[in-house]
Amino acid sequence: MLSVNAISKRAAAGPGPSRNPERTQERILQAAFKEFAGQGFAGARVDRIARRAGINKRMLYHYFGDKESLFREVLRRKMTERKAWGDITPDDPAESLPYWFELACRDMDWIRMLEWEALQFVEKRLIDEDRRRDAIGGAVERIRMRQKLGHLSDEFSAKHILLAMISLTWFPLAFPQLTRLITGQSVGDPAFATAQKEFLSRFALAFQDRKLQHQFESRRNGRVKRNSR
Amino acid sequence: MLSVNAISKRAAAGPGPSRNPERTQERILQAAFKEFAGQGFAGARVDRIARRAGINKRMLYHYFGDKESLFREVLRRKMTERKAWGDITPDDPAESLPYWFELACRDMDWIRMLEWEALQFVEKRLIDEDRRRDAIGGAVERIRMRQKLGHLSDEFSAKHILLAMISLTWFPLAFPQLTRLITGQSVGDPAFATAQKEFLSRFALAFQDRKLQHQFESRRNGRVKRNSR
Repeated sequence: MLSVNAISKRAAAGPGPSRNPERTQERILQAAFKEFAGQGFAGARVDRIARRAGINKRMLYHYFGDKESLFREVLRRKMTERKAWGDITPDDPAESLPYWFELACRDMDWIRMLEWEALQFVEKRLIDEDRRRDAIGGAVERIRMRQKLGHLSDEFSAKHILLAMISLTWFPLAFPQLTRLITGQSVGDPAFATAQKEFLSRFALAFQDRKLQHQFESRRNGRVKRNSR
Repeated sequence: MLSVNAISKRAAAGPGPSRNPERTQERILQAAFKEFAGQGFAGARVDRIARRAGINKRMLYHYFGDKESLFREVLRRKMTERKAWGDITPDDPAESLPYWFELACRDMDWIRMLEWEALQFVEKRLIDEDRRRDAIGGAVERIRMRQKLGHLSDEFSAKHILLAMISLTWFPLAFPQLTRLITGQSVGDPAFATAQKEFLSRFALAFQDRKLQHQFESRRNGRVKRNSR
């Protein structure tokens, strides 16, 4: 995102100053996120974003340049947000999987935006690919760290673990019609979310070090008291 | 699909007989599948399907009615095909997960078609919903049977197992850009497929009865000979 100074400068030189450039920018980005999630990058219309944000199109271009720049800006904001979530992910997969699932439930627009991208970009270079690869590299690194600390099995590569964890937590939300066909429940149904979190928490054992599994299980069941750390 | 008799009757009464109605019908369905996978139901154009199948649009309507009927027909064919695949799924998840993944790799258009549907239909009633629910119910039933026979853990519900297995095998293909960002490999890269199958085969332990896990592992490693069944 542009710094406040840069915005002020641009606004001074641009098509009429805004009373509150930061708030305007925020409104535009939220409207853009909704539009990209609803229509995909190819189908998104800048004039619809401007209308939704309640500003004129000229002002939008003034702040963010073209549609691709706007998409890049939305991505970067999401990456920053998601990195913050990643940093506070619980170490134990029995907690982190339900946590990721819960975040995904609250972030369906993000999944939909990537789903559009999956259908439309496929083999091309992605918008902001380098930065996105770095961000995901950070997530892989956090998994590697948890492997070193013994929270996750080192039987699998960190990349495979990350891909499998995202698969398990996102897929049911990315394909809500299949989830409904399989479980009979809507993904928006709190009963579905509760059951899914419960499943993920137990299934998480699959990511734990098998040597430690018994120990973990005993701890969780309270049969063995923790002595020290 | 219409029976051969029905087709002949229709062709005789319709806009000019076709030399080989079955082959024409097959061409139309293949073209329709490509179109639905590429554009989604909403974006699909019947005239593009007709052009791709090399017939005129009037003939297409004659055989299949409207776009929705065509979509329904494509779905039904895929369901029949997938049921046949389901019936010969190996019992041991260490084999069935790589098997499902391999099928998914060869059936990317099916995943893309459902991905479009996920983005476009969401909370509405699905085309052919009842029949599709029945088909998926059959898959759940097959899992339940494998649980009874001890091939799969009964710690989880059959529905959760099915959803998790589809998640693990489909997600990396449904979001090829994320797979590339995470693994650095394209989903079309044979090296990716090999590594993913190897991962799935080992990860499959998660679906096995824990009491039997050691036994299974020993068998697979050839340390214990199977005595009887």
